Amino acid sequence: MIPPEIQPLSDRKAEILSTARGLFSRKGFLGASMRDLAAELDIQPPSLYSHYTSKDEILWEIAIRCARQFYETVLPIAKEDTSIEDRLNRMIRQHAALILANQDAAAIFHQEWEHLAEPRRSRFAKITFDYEEAFVKMIREGGESGVFRKVEPKFTTSMVLSGISWIYRWYKPEGSMTVEDIGNHLADFLLAGLRSNA
Amino acid sequence: MIPPEIQPLSDRKAEILSTARGLFSRKGFLGASMRDLAAELDIQPPSLYSHYTSKDEILWEIAIRCARQFYETVLPIAKEDTSIEDRLNRMIRQHAALILANQDAAAIFHQEWEHLAEPRRSRFAKITFDYEEAFVKMIREGGESGVFRKVEPKFTTSMVLSGISWIYRWYKPEGSMTVEDIGNHLADFLLAGLRSNA
Repeated sequence: MIPPEIQPLSDRKAEILSTARGLFSRKGFLGASMRDLAAELDIQPPSLYSHYTSKDEILWEIAIRCARQFYETVLPIAKEDTSIEDRLNRMIRQHAALILANQDAAAIFHQEWEHLAEPRRSRFAKITFDYEEAFVKMIREGGESGVFRKVEPKFTTSMVLSGISWIYRWYKPEGSMTVEDIGNHLADFLLAGLRSNA
Repeated sequence: MIPPEIQPLSDRKAEILSTARGLFSRKGFLGASMRDLAAELDIQPPSLYSHYTSKDEILWEIAIRCARQFYETVLPIAKEDTSIEDRLNRMIRQHAALILANQDAAAIFHQEWEHLAEPRRSRFAKITFDYEEAFVKMIREGGESGVFRKVEPKFTTSMVLSGISWIYRWYKPEGSMTVEDIGNHLADFLLAGLRSNA
């Protein structure tokens, strides 16, 4: 399921989402209250509720914006006309670069969305499932065509994406590795694990 | 820092820790209250507080018991007298097997411990750091001796351990992969990513 079209935001709503991203990523969605959020925004709770009726709605808005970025930036690479290995390499780098450029959002895309209430939770589960399927399909095709080893594609995709996703908890922009270094390390390691001559 | 010696538990305390493990893993540490825990144990809150004075103390007790298992089961393999590749292979399988045998505890070992209050949080951070160092050391030595590719050992260790750790959120004992299958897939993939002829 493709994430819904994103509506443009008022400045105030954009500020609320951006502050909430930081707060949820720092304290966890369950640990953060609407009261905390209002306090960080320096507004009264009723004013916050006039923009968003629940914490769940805010989480949903953040999650689909984030999902949309991953869909629009990473998935088109899968359809390009180059080798499977080249495409997967660039998908891994691009996926990692997005995480590093949006560490707060990545925490939500990977984890905090699980706290969404129904029916949003199921909708978002389908969005992340379909995103992963693009990787599953590529790993399956690579196995069938002999470029990659024969592996269980779904399991291997989870392993690959988890091998990337931890970086949002660890990366410090002032550290010694650049975003490009990190993408290179990840792609080299993960593709070496997949290659059929390994 | 080696996790402290584990003291034997009364039956009541063992029941409290086991129920808390499930509760924290299901609702998250922040989302679960002492009141929830007392309700699940079907006791009154004051009776719970007579055993443990805080949620933090319970989290600590669970976390160090879990750490102790990882230390005692996985780390001795590093000192055995076989090739680096064989030792790392078995460490990966054993680490994965422990996670699968203790999914609730694994959630705490990997994630929920970060909610410990100081000074326990810093003590536990040191315990997990030293556990990872056993892997870092092996990956560094493998790079120096030419068995593994020259990689940044700390970064690669995080990638390897994250490539394993997601399984606690995903594994269903009734699923089609056995614990042994999973260990094999993980070790094959991760060692292929490390090997110098890849």
